[in-house]
Amino acid sequence: MHTENLMEKIVSLCKRRGFVFQGSEIYGGLAGTYDYGPLGSLLKNNIRDSWLRKFVHTRMDMYLVDAAILMNQRVWQATGHVDEFIDPLVECSNCQKRCRVDAIVDEKDIMGLVARHGGSATAEDLASAQKFVGPLMKYILEQEHVTCPDCKKVAWGMPRVFNMMLETRVGAAADSTSVSYLRPETAQGIFVNYKNVVDTQSPKLPFGIAQVGKAFRNEITPRDFIFRVRELEQMEIEYFFNPDDTEKPWQELFDYWKEEQLEWFTAIGIDAERLHDYEHPAEARAHYSLKTVDWEFEYPFGTKEMSGLAYRTNFDLSRHSEFSGQKLDYFDEDTKTRFAPHVIEPSVGLERLFLAVLASAYSEEILENGETRVYLKLAPKIAPYKVCVSPLLRNKPDLVEKAKVVFQALRDEFTYVVWDDSGNIGKRYRRQDEIGTPMCIVVDFDSLDNDDVTIRDRDTAEQVRVPMSELSEHIRTRLA
Amino acid sequence: MHTENLMEKIVSLCKRRGFVFQGSEIYGGLAGTYDYGPLGSLLKNNIRDSWLRKFVHTRMDMYLVDAAILMNQRVWQATGHVDEFIDPLVECSNCQKRCRVDAIVDEKDIMGLVARHGGSATAEDLASAQKFVGPLMKYILEQEHVTCPDCKKVAWGMPRVFNMMLETRVGAAADSTSVSYLRPETAQGIFVNYKNVVDTQSPKLPFGIAQVGKAFRNEITPRDFIFRVRELEQMEIEYFFNPDDTEKPWQELFDYWKEEQLEWFTAIGIDAERLHDYEHPAEARAHYSLKTVDWEFEYPFGTKEMSGLAYRTNFDLSRHSEFSGQKLDYFDEDTKTRFAPHVIEPSVGLERLFLAVLASAYSEEILENGETRVYLKLAPKIAPYKVCVSPLLRNKPDLVEKAKVVFQALRDEFTYVVWDDSGNIGKRYRRQDEIGTPMCIVVDFDSLDNDDVTIRDRDTAEQVRVPMSELSEHIRTRLA
Repeated sequence: MHTENLMEKIVSLCKRRGFVFQGSEIYGGLAGTYDYGPLGSLLKNNIRDSWLRKFVHTRMDMYLVDAAILMNQRVWQATGHVDEFIDPLVECSNCQKRCRVDAIVDEKDIMGLVARHGGSATAEDLASAQKFVGPLMKYILEQEHVTCPDCKKVAWGMPRVFNMMLETRVGAAADSTSVSYLRPETAQGIFVNYKNVVDTQSPKLPFGIAQVGKAFRNEITPRDFIFRVRELEQMEIEYFFNPDDTEKPWQELFDYWKEEQLEWFTAIGIDAERLHDYEHPAEARAHYSLKTVDWEFEYPFGTKEMSGLAYRTNFDLSRHSEFSGQKLDYFDEDTKTRFAPHVIEPSVGLERLFLAVLASAYSEEILENGETRVYLKLAPKIAPYKVCVSPLLRNKPDLVEKAKVVFQALRDEFTYVVWDDSGNIGKRYRRQDEIGTPMCIVVDFDSLDNDDVTIRDRDTAEQVRVPMSELSEHIRTRLA
Repeated sequence: MHTENLMEKIVSLCKRRGFVFQGSEIYGGLAGTYDYGPLGSLLKNNIRDSWLRKFVHTRMDMYLVDAAILMNQRVWQATGHVDEFIDPLVECSNCQKRCRVDAIVDEKDIMGLVARHGGSATAEDLASAQKFVGPLMKYILEQEHVTCPDCKKVAWGMPRVFNMMLETRVGAAADSTSVSYLRPETAQGIFVNYKNVVDTQSPKLPFGIAQVGKAFRNEITPRDFIFRVRELEQMEIEYFFNPDDTEKPWQELFDYWKEEQLEWFTAIGIDAERLHDYEHPAEARAHYSLKTVDWEFEYPFGTKEMSGLAYRTNFDLSRHSEFSGQKLDYFDEDTKTRFAPHVIEPSVGLERLFLAVLASAYSEEILENGETRVYLKLAPKIAPYKVCVSPLLRNKPDLVEKAKVVFQALRDEFTYVVWDDSGNIGKRYRRQDEIGTPMCIVVDFDSLDNDDVTIRDRDTAEQVRVPMSELSEHIRTRLA
């Protein structure tokens, strides 16, 4: 479905109904941070729980870890983040606006531009931003007449690199030994715990280690609501396997994980028609990766990366092994061989999923009276509330009493059940539609005589009568 | 139960079985940070989920929020953290060891010491550490012959204050406007979202806002395993009420929350006999608090604060109102009055709970053969796994096949079910005992004939035979 101004509508609904607010809003905000309100917290928790259920709790080959956000600084020296997790930054000398170079010139054009202006740069050079900096990039910006997004002038200072890791100092000493970083990704918390998991759980290959947690990136220009933020939550898996296993070559495992991702995305209600796989061309991949495929989503502001899947070989373990001096390999009891396992990494950002879920669910319908009905057709398993229970009228004690009995019983069974008795029934339906509650149950006067209730469906607005004795089973079926 | 060297045993079990590891362990660690392994992650998640269920999902008056860790720096100016969240720090001029003054002299003696040495200090002065610093404190350390914990000399430098907030810089500018802090508590994420919750959810007083999330404190001397750490997780509630409500005075609400805390602590298996309430004397409370009661737990290293309960009046909202310029009050529709709600804050640290749970659960029993059986008598609701399923022998295909059917069915129903077929049955029982699995199910040769299984109880080691047809119900009853 195409909706006009979809992004504005989602942002407005998120704020109005308590899904997502600007971080520190009463203080004028803090760019790139967001606070999740009551509805948003539930939706986010439900997405996270669904991921854990699908990828951890119902598998026999997955181990969960929860590593600290603050890590020994040598972790990020080993991975190259200290030197290479950098963005090219340029300042307009007219208005002092600071921009990421790749935010003001199209990312995909940069290599072509470099070539046209007599330079040469591989994808990796660009990824590490080395070729962005200095006189060449300034020359390109000026030759291409790239204007400042604020003052519209072409008056660029000298581009420089800017490390995207947020730095802090831990402990009482104020020297370089105290430097630490807010982890820029959760993946390394997994690799650093590889040995712990192997030593304590004796897993058989192939197996995965999963982690959900916060990561931080000092984005120069956070943008597109919760899409490009400074504080984010990642859900990552490192799936370790024997690269010499001829029965199951890595290509098969890779395809398997790609399908597992897609299956889960659609299960939580992300519109499959707006999902596209994008394979990074060889020259655009990191040197250690043999294949990288993103799932991209058609966000209202463009088609962008929602999740990643990368075959990272044994790069991370070998680097940590080198820098830590610890053996990070695998001993196969059956073949009595020792080798370095390879890894496939399915990873996804929780906020990007959250936004894709909302963009997929946001729906409008013109009613007969000309009004517009807005509803979120969220998958029941992730909807903040599964059921709303109401008495038809709040000032009729016997309706209220019976509705309360229904409410309590459903809440005991389904937990996420909400009570709503304010305004008229039509208003309550609109309110629940907007927050994606799949079913509204109303206790009316007939309910008192017939011991049944009305259930109204969010998406079709159709109503059915269900006897109390069948209510729990009826709801269970519809939620499954 | 008194266990010798309980702390060492818990730390060792946590490492050996994959509950808790030193953070960044392969790199020699990062002091005050810990990584949770597969078992620890499950236990931590289960404690968190149980808290959410008890205090949020089963209540009608509680709203969940999930605010960013990075907040606008003015938040911490408003609360006083920038000026007052400081520790007194002193360095030994002989060996350069840095210590918190209140870690080397008994916290409770400090006021007496100050008085004896001719100074005067209120509790609040001490809380804000102002009186610790400078010549007086140095004089006290020397007069009292407080020795350096490392070199045992008395050679103190001049004490100074040290802010415990971890600082970082956000954005591309490197001036003071970019300063941000890793939040030192989750509570302020709640107060800063008070207006958002009131505006979007129209809650009726009394109501609470709850949050679970990370907080950071730059402890000078992290210690006692996961008890005093630099990166922690808090579960906090701010419960707002009308201070002029004569029907329900704050004392009643306070007692209610104190009981709710205790009820939940014991429900997740914390030994009530090792829990004690400790009311802060008036002179030791913050000036805005009218009552503060901690639940203290007899940890192996001493009786220490596990959770807090504080009546904070309207201090926080009024400060944020003053600093943000926003009205943070409540309009009562019934009485048409506008006022500043007061707040009671039940708060607990997840790691401290986790440790109290382990200390309560850790048990040893001398067996007839003289060996020691170690078991964690965890409450089933928070145990990492609820049930273990095994075939008696792993090399008998029909036993394995039937056990797999049992495993799959139980896993579908109870999720946290583990498969174990390595070593002999006795070893498997020991392994499951050590990680607190309440029940071990074994499929043996009789199972093939009689369609039943053995269930062995973790705490009593008693075994019963249960027909397959009653298995699910039997387990459900025992887990309840």
